[in-house]
Amino acid sequence: MTIDRKHTGPRMSQIVIHGDTVYLAGQVASDAPGQPAGAQMSDILGRIDALLAEAGSDKTKILSATIWLSDIRDFSAINEVWDAWVVQGHTPARACVEAKLAMTKYTVEVGVVAAR
Amino acid sequence: MTIDRKHTGPRMSQIVIHGDTVYLAGQVASDAPGQPAGAQMSDILGRIDALLAEAGSDKTKILSATIWLSDIRDFSAINEVWDAWVVQGHTPARACVEAKLAMTKYTVEVGVVAAR
Amino acid sequence: MTIDRKHTGPRMSQIVIHGDTVYLAGQVASDAPGQPAGAQMSDILGRIDALLAEAGSDKTKILSATIWLSDIRDFSAINEVWDAWVVQGHTPARACVEAKLAMTKYTVEVGVVAAR
Repeated sequence: MTIDRKHTGPRMSQIVIHGDTVYLAGQVASDAPGQPAGAQMSDILGRIDALLAEAGSDKTKILSATIWLSDIRDFSAINEVWDAWVVQGHTPARACVEAKLAMTKYTVEVGVVAAR
Repeated sequence: MTIDRKHTGPRMSQIVIHGDTVYLAGQVASDAPGQPAGAQMSDILGRIDALLAEAGSDKTKILSATIWLSDIRDFSAINEVWDAWVVQGHTPARACVEAKLAMTKYTVEVGVVAAR
Repeated sequence: MTIDRKHTGPRMSQIVIHGDTVYLAGQVASDAPGQPAGAQMSDILGRIDALLAEAGSDKTKILSATIWLSDIRDFSAINEVWDAWVVQGHTPARACVEAKLAMTKYTVEVGVVAAR
């Protein structure tokens, strides 16, 4: 099976495609730093849409998502955005836990494994 | 490769099957909320058995497990239950770290990737 | 697809191979306990090299890596070691978050999914 990498930087690739499986790097809200968690989640989900499109996938094909919140009290706020974004009948496996992130301006990070 | 989802709710699916690989949502002890970590782990591993059976898999085929504990001091308590549950010769790759969970009544969460 | 496990202990296997995909257990710095995060990262990446070689893979084929730091302030220190180790043009998807680990002598843990 081939490996195809996109947006390949010196530290990580944003997209790694292995056969029919797509791995995305943990996404943060680069366009909404320091914003409330819901706004960061919106920014992140838009990035995921764009990256999945580049990978020949889309949000109906997400297999598994991991969500890290630097403050778990943001759980309801991010869920509101998430629930409006996912496609009914095609929701992925998911886990959401609290974890401090590398930069304090980001309070939400989302990792995704998808099919293509 | 086909994607098959089971127990598909508006936020997540409990089971997502992609070809020969099964992704489970992070499981918590819905029948043992607020119980000690070992009791929560027993409840969770029973849920995983049931979900894997529905997915055409079982605990001898787990590839990778991630365990989140809201208090890492529960490490020994959950390991006692885990060690008795896994099948010798078929133990998965595993990582176990501390992370606060969405609801304080749950102190253990387990995510699983399995083969079928 | 076959499942092949190596370094299979009573609690986990260090290597699980499913078809063309390799899952490693979360690696800690068994030879550098209590050392600074950078030294632990060096030890860990050496272990990952060895495990991937046993699995018929190598660091150019890593699909996704998850890094847990017990103190996110070690982010720069571990990145220095990581950036020198990854192979340009072949960097994986990656997420790095803070999480306390099971033993306080370890402050860095790395999980890997690779192709073979």
